[in-house]
Amino acid sequence: MALGAVFLSEVLGTGLLILLGAGVVANVLLTKSKGFDGGWLLINFGWGLAVMAGVYVAYKSGAHLNPAVTIGILSSGASTYAPGVAVTFGSTLVYLAGEMVGAFLGACLCFLAYKKHFDEEPDEGKKLAVFSTGPAIRSYGWNFLTEVLGTFVLVFVVLSFGKTPSGLGPLAVSLLVVGIGASLGGPTGYAINPARDLGPRIAHAILPLRYKGEPASTEPKNSDWSYAWVPVAGPIVGGVIAGLMSHIAF
Amino acid sequence: MALGAVFLSEVLGTGLLILLGAGVVANVLLTKSKGFDGGWLLINFGWGLAVMAGVYVAYKSGAHLNPAVTIGILSSGASTYAPGVAVTFGSTLVYLAGEMVGAFLGACLCFLAYKKHFDEEPDEGKKLAVFSTGPAIRSYGWNFLTEVLGTFVLVFVVLSFGKTPSGLGPLAVSLLVVGIGASLGGPTGYAINPARDLGPRIAHAILPLRYKGEPASTEPKNSDWSYAWVPVAGPIVGGVIAGLMSHIAF
Amino acid sequence: MALGAVFLSEVLGTGLLILLGAGVVANVLLTKSKGFDGGWLLINFGWGLAVMAGVYVAYKSGAHLNPAVTIGILSSGASTYAPGVAVTFGSTLVYLAGEMVGAFLGACLCFLAYKKHFDEEPDEGKKLAVFSTGPAIRSYGWNFLTEVLGTFVLVFVVLSFGKTPSGLGPLAVSLLVVGIGASLGGPTGYAINPARDLGPRIAHAILPLRYKGEPASTEPKNSDWSYAWVPVAGPIVGGVIAGLMSHIAF
Amino acid sequence: MALGAVFLSEVLGTGLLILLGAGVVANVLLTKSKGFDGGWLLINFGWGLAVMAGVYVAYKSGAHLNPAVTIGILSSGASTYAPGVAVTFGSTLVYLAGEMVGAFLGACLCFLAYKKHFDEEPDEGKKLAVFSTGPAIRSYGWNFLTEVLGTFVLVFVVLSFGKTPSGLGPLAVSLLVVGIGASLGGPTGYAINPARDLGPRIAHAILPLRYKGEPASTEPKNSDWSYAWVPVAGPIVGGVIAGLMSHIAF
Repeated sequence: MALGAVFLSEVLGTGLLILLGAGVVANVLLTKSKGFDGGWLLINFGWGLAVMAGVYVAYKSGAHLNPAVTIGILSSGASTYAPGVAVTFGSTLVYLAGEMVGAFLGACLCFLAYKKHFDEEPDEGKKLAVFSTGPAIRSYGWNFLTEVLGTFVLVFVVLSFGKTPSGLGPLAVSLLVVGIGASLGGPTGYAINPARDLGPRIAHAILPLRYKGEPASTEPKNSDWSYAWVPVAGPIVGGVIAGLMSHIAF
Repeated sequence: MALGAVFLSEVLGTGLLILLGAGVVANVLLTKSKGFDGGWLLINFGWGLAVMAGVYVAYKSGAHLNPAVTIGILSSGASTYAPGVAVTFGSTLVYLAGEMVGAFLGACLCFLAYKKHFDEEPDEGKKLAVFSTGPAIRSYGWNFLTEVLGTFVLVFVVLSFGKTPSGLGPLAVSLLVVGIGASLGGPTGYAINPARDLGPRIAHAILPLRYKGEPASTEPKNSDWSYAWVPVAGPIVGGVIAGLMSHIAF
Repeated sequence: MALGAVFLSEVLGTGLLILLGAGVVANVLLTKSKGFDGGWLLINFGWGLAVMAGVYVAYKSGAHLNPAVTIGILSSGASTYAPGVAVTFGSTLVYLAGEMVGAFLGACLCFLAYKKHFDEEPDEGKKLAVFSTGPAIRSYGWNFLTEVLGTFVLVFVVLSFGKTPSGLGPLAVSLLVVGIGASLGGPTGYAINPARDLGPRIAHAILPLRYKGEPASTEPKNSDWSYAWVPVAGPIVGGVIAGLMSHIAF
Repeated sequence: MALGAVFLSEVLGTGLLILLGAGVVANVLLTKSKGFDGGWLLINFGWGLAVMAGVYVAYKSGAHLNPAVTIGILSSGASTYAPGVAVTFGSTLVYLAGEMVGAFLGACLCFLAYKKHFDEEPDEGKKLAVFSTGPAIRSYGWNFLTEVLGTFVLVFVVLSFGKTPSGLGPLAVSLLVVGIGASLGGPTGYAINPARDLGPRIAHAILPLRYKGEPASTEPKNSDWSYAWVPVAGPIVGGVIAGLMSHIAF
C-alpha cells in the first residue's frame, strides 16, 4: 500500500474522529445546543462512536488515528503497521503526519458545524474545552500519570485484539474508548491521543472564536499552552509501556 | 428482485424507522409520557435503534431508508443498489418513492401510538418537533452546512462498510446514527435524511393535532415550511459529496 | 427435543428476563435503591439486557420468552418453533405455560432481591409498577393500540432475523427491545409480552407487599386487574399481525 | 499453558477490570471529577466495559477475572478452565490468587489515577465506595441473598455462552454485567465477584486515604470489615448454584 494512501486514510479517519469527538463536546457544552448538559455518558458514547466511524473509513491503513497507537505498535516490535505497510522511519512519520493533519481539519469542520453556537457562547473556557482537554484539578505530574494510565489501557487492549478471536471489528475499540472515558476520564478529560489534543489546540489558536455578543469579551483568547505537553507526553509514554508489555503479556 | 418488492421493502423499513424515531422524540417531549425529559442520549439511542429495526426488515432491498443514501450510492458510481437491483432511473425513483411513503406512514403510526399524549399537549412546538427537525439557532446557511456535514458522515461511513470485514451487520449503521446524533445533532436536530423530515412534516400538516385542552388553542397549526428545504437539500448535498469522495477514499 | 426440556428452557429464560426486567424497575423506583431515579434509558437497557440474558439461557428452545412471539411464529405459518420442535397444539401450550411459569417465578425472585426496599417503600403504586405495566394516560382503546404497535414491531423484526445474515445473535433482539422501550414505551410502559405483565401481576397479588413503615398503610393492595387485559390482548394481536405480514414482507 | 502464564493473564485482566471499574465509581462520586454525578447507567457501562477490557487481555487463560466464575466452572464439572488448562487443585489456586492480586493492584492504580481527587474528597464514605461495595439498606441476610442472585445470573449465563453460537465474544459478558448492574445492583452495589470487593478493600485499608483538606478529618479510616464477608460468600454461593444448575439446564 502506497504511503500516500496511508496518509489520506489516516487524515480521513482522524478527521472524522475529531469532527465527531469535538462535536459531542460542543453539543453538551455550548449554549442553545440541543444536547446541552447531556451528561458524561453522552460524551463517552460520542467519542467512542467517533472512533468507530474513523476506524471504518481508515480501515485499510489499520486505522491508528492516534500517535500513541502508532508508537505503541512500533515499540511492540511489530513488522507492519497494517497489511502491506512495513514499519519504517518513513511510514512512521506518514502516520504521525496524517493523524495531526486529520485532527486539525476535523476540529475546523466541527467549528463550522457549530459556528453559530460558538458565536453565541460567552464562556471562553467552554470553547477551548470543545477543542482540547484540560485537567479538573491542575497538577501536571498527576495529570500526566492519569494520561499515561488511560492510554496504556487503550493501546494494551488494542494490541490484544489481534490475539483474540472476535467478530466485533471496529466496535471493540469504540466501546473500549467509551469505557476508558467513563472510568479514567474524570481527572483530565481523557486525551489518550496526542493528535486529538494538539491538532485541535492549534485549530483553537487560529480560528476566529471571539465572542460576538455584547459587550464584546475583551479577555484574550487563551489556548492553555502551558498544559499542552501533558496530553502529548502522557499518551506517548502510555503507548510505549503498552507496546513493551505486550511482549510478555500476549 | 422486482421493483415492487423493493418499494414494499423500503416502505416497511422507512416506516419502522420513522415510527420508532418519531416515537422516541414523542416519548421525551410530550406531556405525561413515561420517558419525559429522558435526555439527548435517549433520543440518540432511540433513533439509532430505529435504524437497526428498519434495516432488518428492509434488508433485501439494501435498506437505504434515506434518499441521501440512495443518491450517495448513485453518485458513487455503483452499478447496483442491492443484490439484484440495478441502478437505473426507474429503480432510483422507486427507492425515493418508497422512502417518502414509508416516512409518511411511519409518522402517522407514531401519531396513533401517542394519540392521547398529543391530545393533552398544549405546546404546538413540541408536537412539530416530534415530526420534523428545526434549528436551535435559525440561520439557514449554517443549518444547511450542519446537515451537509452530518449526512456526509453518514453516507461516507456507510459506503466504507462494504470494504471493511465486520460481523456487525445492521448494528454498525445503527451505532453510527447514535454517534452522529450525539456529535452533530446539536444545531439542527440531525435530519440527515430528506424523507425523515419531509414525510413526517407532510403528516404533521395533515393530521388532526389541535390541542384539545381548555381554552382551545387558537394559534394556527404551523409546519414551519420555510425551514423545510434545509433538511432536504443539506442531506442530498452531503450524500453526493460522500458518494464522490468514496472513489478516492476507499 | 423433548417438550419437558422446552418447558424448562422457557421457564429459565423467562424467569431470568423478569428477574432482571422487574429488577431494573425496582432499582429506579424503590426508595433508597442505588439506581433510584436513574432515568428511562436505564430502564430501557435493563429490560433489553434482561432479554439478552434470557435468550442465552433458553437458546435451545428458540428463546421465545413471550407468548406474542410464540403466537407470531404460529401465525407466520412456520413448521417449527426451534430446531427439533414441531409446531403442534401441544408444543404451543408448553411454550405458553413455560413463559407464564417463568414470568411468575422471576417476579418472585425480584421480590426477594429487593425485599428490604419493598418493605421500606410507602408508595403502593411504585410497588405495582415493579411487577406490571400501567398506562400514563388511562384510555383502554388507545393503550391497547400502543401495545399492538409495540409488539408488532418486536415480532415483525424478530421474524426478519432469520432472513438476515448477522453475527449479532442474542444482541439483536436485546437492542431491539431497548429501542422499542425508548420509542414506544412512553404511553403504556411497553409490556409487549403477555407473560411479562400477567405473570408478575399474579405474583404481585400473592406476595406480602404491605408497607411495613409507620403508620401502617391501610390502603388495600390493588393489582389493577381492570387494566390487565390490555397488555395481554394487545401483544397477542400485534404478534398475530406481525406473523401474517411476514408472509408478504420477507 | 503454563500456570505462571495463567497467573499473569488473570492478574492483568483482573487488574484492568478493577482499574476501570473502580475508576468509574471514582469518576461519579469524587469531588471535582468530570463525570461527577453522572448517574447509575454510567456506572453500569463503566463496569461492563471494564469487564470487556479485562476479558480481551486475559483471553488466553479464559478470562475468569472472578473467583465466582472459577468456582462456578469447577462446580459445573468441566475438565478445563481454558484451552490447555486442566481443572486441578493447583490450577484453581492459581486462578484465585491471580484474581486477588490483580484486583488489589488494579485498585492501587485507580488510586493513582484519581490521586488528587482522593486528596480533596472530604467524604470518607465515598472513598470507600470507590474501592468496595456496601449495602443501601444494611441487612446481612438479604444483602447476601441479593449477591447470590446477581452472581447466579452472571455465572449461569456465562456458562450458557459455550452452548450458544454467537460472534459477540467479550461483548456478551460485558453487556451482561451492564444488565446485572442495572437490574440487581440497587440493594448492594453488585459485587458479584469476591476478588472485586476484597482486593480493593485490602487496598483501601493500606493506602494513604486521609483527607488532606482543613480541618483534617479525625475520623478513623474504616474499611467496613463487618460487611466484607457478604460480597465474598454471596458470590461464591451464587457461582456454585449456577455451576450445579448448568448440568440440568444446558
